[in-house]
Amino acid sequence: MTQSFTSSLAPTSLTPLAIGIDVGGTGTKFGIVDRNGNILFSGEISTRGHDEVESFIDELHRVLYSLIQKAGGPGRIIGIGLGAPNGNYYSGTIEYAPNLPWKGIIPLAKLVEDKFKLPVILTNDANAAAIGENMYGAAKGMKDFIMITLGTGVGSGIVANGKLIYGHDGFAGELGHTITIPNGRLHTGTGKFGSLESYASATGVRLTALEMLNNSSEESLLRNTPPENIDSKVVYEAAIQGDKLAKEIFEFTGKILGLALANFVMFSSPEAIILFGGLTKAGDLILKPTQENMEANLIQVFQNKVKILVSHLKEADAAILGASALVWDMKTS
Amino acid sequence: MTQSFTSSLAPTSLTPLAIGIDVGGTGTKFGIVDRNGNILFSGEISTRGHDEVESFIDELHRVLYSLIQKAGGPGRIIGIGLGAPNGNYYSGTIEYAPNLPWKGIIPLAKLVEDKFKLPVILTNDANAAAIGENMYGAAKGMKDFIMITLGTGVGSGIVANGKLIYGHDGFAGELGHTITIPNGRLHTGTGKFGSLESYASATGVRLTALEMLNNSSEESLLRNTPPENIDSKVVYEAAIQGDKLAKEIFEFTGKILGLALANFVMFSSPEAIILFGGLTKAGDLILKPTQENMEANLIQVFQNKVKILVSHLKEADAAILGASALVWDMKTS
Repeated sequence: MTQSFTSSLAPTSLTPLAIGIDVGGTGTKFGIVDRNGNILFSGEISTRGHDEVESFIDELHRVLYSLIQKAGGPGRIIGIGLGAPNGNYYSGTIEYAPNLPWKGIIPLAKLVEDKFKLPVILTNDANAAAIGENMYGAAKGMKDFIMITLGTGVGSGIVANGKLIYGHDGFAGELGHTITIPNGRLHTGTGKFGSLESYASATGVRLTALEMLNNSSEESLLRNTPPENIDSKVVYEAAIQGDKLAKEIFEFTGKILGLALANFVMFSSPEAIILFGGLTKAGDLILKPTQENMEANLIQVFQNKVKILVSHLKEADAAILGASALVWDMKTS
Repeated sequence: MTQSFTSSLAPTSLTPLAIGIDVGGTGTKFGIVDRNGNILFSGEISTRGHDEVESFIDELHRVLYSLIQKAGGPGRIIGIGLGAPNGNYYSGTIEYAPNLPWKGIIPLAKLVEDKFKLPVILTNDANAAAIGENMYGAAKGMKDFIMITLGTGVGSGIVANGKLIYGHDGFAGELGHTITIPNGRLHTGTGKFGSLESYASATGVRLTALEMLNNSSEESLLRNTPPENIDSKVVYEAAIQGDKLAKEIFEFTGKILGLALANFVMFSSPEAIILFGGLTKAGDLILKPTQENMEANLIQVFQNKVKILVSHLKEADAAILGASALVWDMKTS
């Protein structure tokens, strides 16, 4: 990989840097990261605003390139790591991502590589977050853990025997789509019924709230908010004011999450499960029923062993750091 | 490892052999195996007949030692591999195995080692079967697959990135205990509700048959058999004679198994799932609904990719071969 050097700084006088990019359904965040996990420069562009992937790449290049210049020019960057929903590590493509504006199979790694003229490596966004937690966060040094991201959707990255599980085709770790409640709630993105994501995501919490408000006549602060504005944040704010129904919504969500986690534990027996993302802000409102129902569904040999940890990395940092960590791996292996 | 040599044959003139032992709930099978997976001598003793593990070890030694003599004496044996339910690879113990007569934590590897004066390595019985399939059977050469044993219970061994998943404590791969139908059928051995094993095992098929016979007044050949004698074999025989209710029992069982398999696929994205054990004898009666309901519950990226294969190794051979393969690994690594 030869690169023309466009900065006035001599490359040999500077430590190399990697770029980590976290492509999300709403926005895309990126950072220029050093070997120790310090994010030196960072920025964000809209994902949703680009109906075509080409215009997305154009804006990404324009905004990120100015950061690259500030960081000493492209000669200092050894590569770009990308985390993206439905990203495939083996092929560098995004395939049928229900939460992205671009449909079908998108060769994202190649598009970025062609635009930036830098080596690019791509993985699933939750896998990137798992690598970030493993190198710099709550899963530091662990050889067996599961990362669960609880955002608009539910993502996951699974590490066993010290390695990410990619599966035979690069798509392993879609735990948000496992069926937790057979014949349960419809997931409109996949057409499947009762997946974990249809309950234990921000979207799921909103749907649970609407259902519970509909099915009871109980007094609730939530009734002061028009249904179209009810989201997990509104439910959280009602819950911390002591609203009974709001607390029940998190209790219900946590129970389903706990049941799912029990099943994951009996699969790969991780040392810890790292939870990350918006829903974890509800703290014990969701974590307590999660932990309790996980334990209740575990057979004896697994009980009281598995830690449920909440990520302490700043929102998006885990994924940016993890994506950048892919680059160090790429260059050293 | 020094061994006194008790046979008249010189050890150097003969290829080394390994012993594989499959400890089951009813019987314990064993074989003396060469490096190519040929079982040269084999035998079986009762497990259930021994309330105390010491008397089990005594009988195992007595019967197996005569085979060792036939095979050229202990000097030719490089070690013993054990597969056992709830077996722990790291500690060499069996822990709280609901299907074995010995309760609590049993240091089985140490007991066998002390008795035979040979190096011993132990793993979960289904993990042993997975290794056997990987070396000599349907999963030959695969780096990502899941082995499911459908016998009295449901066991599993998971291989990802070319390695068995043991988890942080050695207990990974208890897929039979994952909850497939929340609040479903009670598993009397674990006290949990709705586990895969409570439906997709020989025991589960019997319970489904009794439930269906009870809940309908439909004509069925199964009504000619006293309830206490109904088992998966009786149901199979009725089904191949065209009995509608018997076919529905396998259909129901296959659907639940298929749902569970979909969840496993979305976890580790294996190239294939290898099914093994008594229930697979029902062939398409169970495999067709299994395959169909697996596909129906998979999100798009996983559909029409994962092979469901039935083991072609003789009953118990996979586990004996796999247990013996542990020995080769032990000696070469």
